[in-house]
Amino acid sequence: MTPNFPTLLREIAEAVKSEFGKGKVANYIPALAKVPPNKFGIAIETIRGEQYHLGDAMERFSIQSISKVFTLAMAFRLERKNLWKRVGLEPSGNPFNSLIQLEYERGIPRNPFINAGALVVTDILLEHFAGPKAAILDFIHTLTGQNDIQYDEEVARSEREFGYTNAALANFIKSHGNIHNSVEAVLDVYFHQCSIAMSCQELARAFLLFANHGVVPATQERLLTSSQSKRLNAIMLTCGFYDEAGEFAFAVGLPGKSGVGGGIVAIIPGELAIAVWSPELNEHGNSVLGIKVLEMFTTLTGMSIF
Amino acid sequence: MTPNFPTLLREIAEAVKSEFGKGKVANYIPALAKVPPNKFGIAIETIRGEQYHLGDAMERFSIQSISKVFTLAMAFRLERKNLWKRVGLEPSGNPFNSLIQLEYERGIPRNPFINAGALVVTDILLEHFAGPKAAILDFIHTLTGQNDIQYDEEVARSEREFGYTNAALANFIKSHGNIHNSVEAVLDVYFHQCSIAMSCQELARAFLLFANHGVVPATQERLLTSSQSKRLNAIMLTCGFYDEAGEFAFAVGLPGKSGVGGGIVAIIPGELAIAVWSPELNEHGNSVLGIKVLEMFTTLTGMSIF
Amino acid sequence: MTPNFPTLLREIAEAVKSEFGKGKVANYIPALAKVPPNKFGIAIETIRGEQYHLGDAMERFSIQSISKVFTLAMAFRLERKNLWKRVGLEPSGNPFNSLIQLEYERGIPRNPFINAGALVVTDILLEHFAGPKAAILDFIHTLTGQNDIQYDEEVARSEREFGYTNAALANFIKSHGNIHNSVEAVLDVYFHQCSIAMSCQELARAFLLFANHGVVPATQERLLTSSQSKRLNAIMLTCGFYDEAGEFAFAVGLPGKSGVGGGIVAIIPGELAIAVWSPELNEHGNSVLGIKVLEMFTTLTGMSIF
Amino acid sequence: MTPNFPTLLREIAEAVKSEFGKGKVANYIPALAKVPPNKFGIAIETIRGEQYHLGDAMERFSIQSISKVFTLAMAFRLERKNLWKRVGLEPSGNPFNSLIQLEYERGIPRNPFINAGALVVTDILLEHFAGPKAAILDFIHTLTGQNDIQYDEEVARSEREFGYTNAALANFIKSHGNIHNSVEAVLDVYFHQCSIAMSCQELARAFLLFANHGVVPATQERLLTSSQSKRLNAIMLTCGFYDEAGEFAFAVGLPGKSGVGGGIVAIIPGELAIAVWSPELNEHGNSVLGIKVLEMFTTLTGMSIF
Repeated sequence: MTPNFPTLLREIAEAVKSEFGKGKVANYIPALAKVPPNKFGIAIETIRGEQYHLGDAMERFSIQSISKVFTLAMAFRLERKNLWKRVGLEPSGNPFNSLIQLEYERGIPRNPFINAGALVVTDILLEHFAGPKAAILDFIHTLTGQNDIQYDEEVARSEREFGYTNAALANFIKSHGNIHNSVEAVLDVYFHQCSIAMSCQELARAFLLFANHGVVPATQERLLTSSQSKRLNAIMLTCGFYDEAGEFAFAVGLPGKSGVGGGIVAIIPGELAIAVWSPELNEHGNSVLGIKVLEMFTTLTGMSIF
Repeated sequence: MTPNFPTLLREIAEAVKSEFGKGKVANYIPALAKVPPNKFGIAIETIRGEQYHLGDAMERFSIQSISKVFTLAMAFRLERKNLWKRVGLEPSGNPFNSLIQLEYERGIPRNPFINAGALVVTDILLEHFAGPKAAILDFIHTLTGQNDIQYDEEVARSEREFGYTNAALANFIKSHGNIHNSVEAVLDVYFHQCSIAMSCQELARAFLLFANHGVVPATQERLLTSSQSKRLNAIMLTCGFYDEAGEFAFAVGLPGKSGVGGGIVAIIPGELAIAVWSPELNEHGNSVLGIKVLEMFTTLTGMSIF
Repeated sequence: MTPNFPTLLREIAEAVKSEFGKGKVANYIPALAKVPPNKFGIAIETIRGEQYHLGDAMERFSIQSISKVFTLAMAFRLERKNLWKRVGLEPSGNPFNSLIQLEYERGIPRNPFINAGALVVTDILLEHFAGPKAAILDFIHTLTGQNDIQYDEEVARSEREFGYTNAALANFIKSHGNIHNSVEAVLDVYFHQCSIAMSCQELARAFLLFANHGVVPATQERLLTSSQSKRLNAIMLTCGFYDEAGEFAFAVGLPGKSGVGGGIVAIIPGELAIAVWSPELNEHGNSVLGIKVLEMFTTLTGMSIF
Repeated sequence: MTPNFPTLLREIAEAVKSEFGKGKVANYIPALAKVPPNKFGIAIETIRGEQYHLGDAMERFSIQSISKVFTLAMAFRLERKNLWKRVGLEPSGNPFNSLIQLEYERGIPRNPFINAGALVVTDILLEHFAGPKAAILDFIHTLTGQNDIQYDEEVARSEREFGYTNAALANFIKSHGNIHNSVEAVLDVYFHQCSIAMSCQELARAFLLFANHGVVPATQERLLTSSQSKRLNAIMLTCGFYDEAGEFAFAVGLPGKSGVGGGIVAIIPGELAIAVWSPELNEHGNSVLGIKVLEMFTTLTGMSIF
């Protein structure tokens, strides 16, 4: 029995209102700091084609780390084996840009969703595509059917200008031979992928690929094997929320990915994808209201993978 | 559609034969080192009461860390809030008896399935039960209906004799005030719980509690709320396999728990529990054949939470 | 030219008065917490037999970690080679009871002045002496000529009662095979050595051994080779002040050792030993006034090894 | 009594011959890898103007990390207080280019002789000098009287080309705000300072500044206060030999500094400076023969600060 999603979303939106003001908008770059903290949207897309949305669900924002799921899916299509020799699968247990584990593990990032791992994944895309930036957008256009999704050049420039930690990571990985292209080229693509602007609706639509076992529902195009899709979901569950992944799995119990732009997308395999946007972040870099919304969603619908 | 489990188990058993000899029987205590490496059993129990077994599935062995799931379930029933102030929920990203994260985090173990966390959970049981050792067996008797499941005193004695690392952990946690009983008393219960001897069949039966959302299928007794059961499953998925949890989630995709006695139990929520025993361990302390069996099981049945 | 020490000591005592109240008396055990914070003594003994003292220089207090120098000297006499296979020589760069480096380095403590290293040194004494507690006192009696220097049993009992961190360290080292006697026996001797009560005068007298290149000046008895004495001085300079060793070398520039009882002893090779007692400690566990006194002493006398 | 240095040097040179072939020439950049491994020189300069040399003592080689002493001395002249807020004084206890301690300590390097610390020191020079590269050479010309000491542009270029680890460090420190100039500008000066080519004789001459309490003996020019000179010596003793500093202090007992070009310089305060060159390095990056020579030198002369 499908829940009455419109009623449910209104109920959730009403309930989580009290959480406004409890987090902080990302301010490490000016382009993100100026986003109004009261933005709030939810979108649900089911694999059967139903769509529900609320609030600012159609407004685009910076997807930031959510882009790591797209590039990982692209790299997984291209490198089924070598990928997992160059990046691990274990939760990091450390903040998302930690140099520490990287050093212990000699340039092999713990998983593809910490920044270090995402840089290696991006490096793999540079090895396979003459125009990696165009290829990433193409992939997202295929998933969403929205061909005007673009990089936000102002955000990308701002990321680069203040991107010393990522430059440190990339140089360190390069020193261990696990980045094959030039550091500059990898960082350029990486800063761009973080700057992609998408709406909740577009994110939910795109993530149906993972809810639908590797097939884009709208076009029935298979982009990942069922096994690949299942494995990406496993990584999202165990590593998708920085060092709060365990807490998220405990409280929500869905595979998903968050970004410091305030977006969170999660999926229920075989059913749907749900995206939330609210720019105020908790101390782990995850959207305060986003997590609350997903907790309520699983509690009220009883939908859970566990 | 239910798969033909007897055929499937035979097929899997045949296929994994080639893995014998690739791991090493745990040898940190003599009582475990003498277990024949070629022991091999599989048991499946479904929540509808079907039972399947193969090989040494009825022979009891040392459940070791699998006991941590039972004590955690008991503690969760007693302490819904305080439990998670004294032990974390995040995957550890470090080997299972690491003192390092414990030190960084000032005596709060990362999760209840690393030894440090299990010691705190055991300490909680000592606070609630006058006879904690009897209480643990009672709980397991309730789950399995097998009242002759017992501690193996020789194993418990051996654990204690060589248990310097656990003594180090317990003393360190005590120094931070997160063990409330005497170190000796906590270690005594802990070494005993590790020594419990159960068969694959009994383990599968016991874990139906978690597959059946908190209710013992045979008696319809509710021991955990649906939410508690779901949350325990999430912890098993993210933390159940030492520092190989991510790899296990990636390759198998089921909540479960392994022990250095060579046992692994996993569940498919709403469906069944499956237990495997093969004493040869990989470098992470997980049963080589056990993991292989579960990988094949999910691949061949298509059963997965993702 | 010898400075006028009596005048100098009065000048220093006057100048450091303003430091009272800036530190905290050690309170991890009740027996130490009750020491009056305003105790203050200085003693100088030269290798030519001159003696100078001021304030509470004749009152005994708990020497705590200063005892590590005595046990190290004893062990060095017995084990010239094996000693340095079981304990390192490098500054720890971490607080004095850190489990972290111990874990990285598989039970080989970084140096003999962190607690872990001192436990291994004590274990060596247990291997060589049937009565290690008597042997330690004998050694100190030989150095000082004061045969009534004793263990403070109340302090030793208190150390044991709250000694969870040291018990953790000893168990962890034992788990790596680097403690050969029983953990209990090693801890018993260790907690006793920390409890030894000596005055500034007696400490300065005892440390003349290291100022005088291995020979007790009063008796002309050679207890260490010149090379051993030189090497112990090097360890004191690089490791004698917990994680403040570099700062101490920078500001004072003398080999020395401090204890949480508020004592500090330092030497000028070929010249003298100076001991200070003031129980208020800084955040690194070193006496606030003790360090200040030694800074002024080297500044005003120009005496320095550099 | 002054030893007969010419005889002594011949004796030492003969004795250490057997160590050839036990280490490896630095090969992280091609420009260093091509240095013949059998190069070997020793030079002694006393503060009274005596000079002794042996073997390749007049041939210039890449001083590498020895340059850190010169830049630190320059920075200490300029920033007596702020310097020690931006870089620590404690031995690192970790390999010389470790990112780990840097991360724990939020961009404040542990000491000025690990690469991270030297980068901050270089950044300070960029803040004070319009032409920092010329200023560094000027300082060395002043110390040595040799105005043709120069950067080796081939080495500098090679350092830059393979300098990913240093680029990682600089970016990471910049991300914490402890580098004030552009990362590129700091790295350019840093890679140049490492490339400076000097002979043993020139190095010994230059280090007389530190043996002579801050005054250049040849010109009687005071460049450092006596206190500054003493403090630099203390840092050399505790931090001058990467993670082998404790071992060096134990075995040799002199303040000094080594570089991966195979040079080592040490001083005896109030007496002399001694420089050795032999390109084969041990696993810590210190010259195998260099350390052996200094060990024998202190043993045979009895000269030691302890």
